[in-house]
Amino acid sequence: MLKKLSVRTSKRVEFLEITGEVRKFIGESGIREGIVVIYVPHTTCGVTVNEHADPSVVSDMTKHLGKLVPEDAGYSHIEGNSDAHIKTSIIGSSLTLIINNGSLMLGTWQGVFLCEFDGPRTREIYLKIIAG
Amino acid sequence: MLKKLSVRTSKRVEFLEITGEVRKFIGESGIREGIVVIYVPHTTCGVTVNEHADPSVVSDMTKHLGKLVPEDAGYSHIEGNSDAHIKTSIIGSSLTLIINNGSLMLGTWQGVFLCEFDGPRTREIYLKIIAG
Amino acid sequence: MLKKLSVRTSKRVEFLEITGEVRKFIGESGIREGIVVIYVPHTTCGVTVNEHADPSVVSDMTKHLGKLVPEDAGYSHIEGNSDAHIKTSIIGSSLTLIINNGSLMLGTWQGVFLCEFDGPRTREIYLKIIAG
Repeated sequence: MLKKLSVRTSKRVEFLEITGEVRKFIGESGIREGIVVIYVPHTTCGVTVNEHADPSVVSDMTKHLGKLVPEDAGYSHIEGNSDAHIKTSIIGSSLTLIINNGSLMLGTWQGVFLCEFDGPRTREIYLKIIAG
Repeated sequence: MLKKLSVRTSKRVEFLEITGEVRKFIGESGIREGIVVIYVPHTTCGVTVNEHADPSVVSDMTKHLGKLVPEDAGYSHIEGNSDAHIKTSIIGSSLTLIINNGSLMLGTWQGVFLCEFDGPRTREIYLKIIAG
Repeated sequence: MLKKLSVRTSKRVEFLEITGEVRKFIGESGIREGIVVIYVPHTTCGVTVNEHADPSVVSDMTKHLGKLVPEDAGYSHIEGNSDAHIKTSIIGSSLTLIINNGSLMLGTWQGVFLCEFDGPRTREIYLKIIAG
């Protein structure tokens, strides 16, 4: 089972929660047990799991990543978004989660986030379920 | 095949090796070929593969991560553990390994580590095997 | 379906593109739908997805990772390659990609890279396909 999602980000750097879309796809698939791979086909945008209850967690995260990898740090890449490429490889483009009893198996405080590092843009996300 | 493990960490920041538990579950499952997903349902604790022969490797790693993401750096999140959330997304919450001929396929020097960033606590780990 | 690849890196730090090798294995397998796990059995070398069109992207990435995790930063590990171990856990040792209609499902600008952090060396890569 494969699905392509499209989402719209609204800032240059933004963590956008997509947990609901992942849960919806699992429900539609009818799969009870297996895994779901969440894949981002972009090079300036990643995917992660982190706390979704308090929005200050992801704002601290985007701010601190901006300190570690500043927008301007004497990069050579002419498009001026090397920081976004570097953050993408630090965070990752692919995530594998577990499906149990027909539901996404997350911890209480966990949400799934698309990590926009060079927005605002329309971004695609691929969701792939393997039953088993 | 799904298993929930529970482990106890003993420090605020600690890499705790869980390779033996993963190997044990693969043995119990009877699966000869496939993959195993190791998933941490917490937002201040991750999972990684690295050297398990010399403990100075993981101590250098925890120290250097502490320099990159200090415990106190003017974060907004009121619980005071934003560093732990940030490190979790840098290291990752999910890991996919290969099972070959009934065994976990690791390199000679590799071990699997739960990465505690806000302990000491009792932590859960989900292990999911997909045969194939 | 499992395959072991061997590649030769030529510098201490280098991102070596292996997209062609991954595509070739998918073709050989005859699998039309599923996932492929790319696994590096080393502790000073990782795997990532990033832009393969402009080589300045990966050179900016290796340079900036070198600033974040310098080769010499008072580490204890006696082999003198702690920076390489730390970068490996930041980038990751395992990657899960999607196979659709017999092809690797990447974005237009994406390539798969072995991330050498302590070369030059001969490195192994394990590729594992799960159909589904």
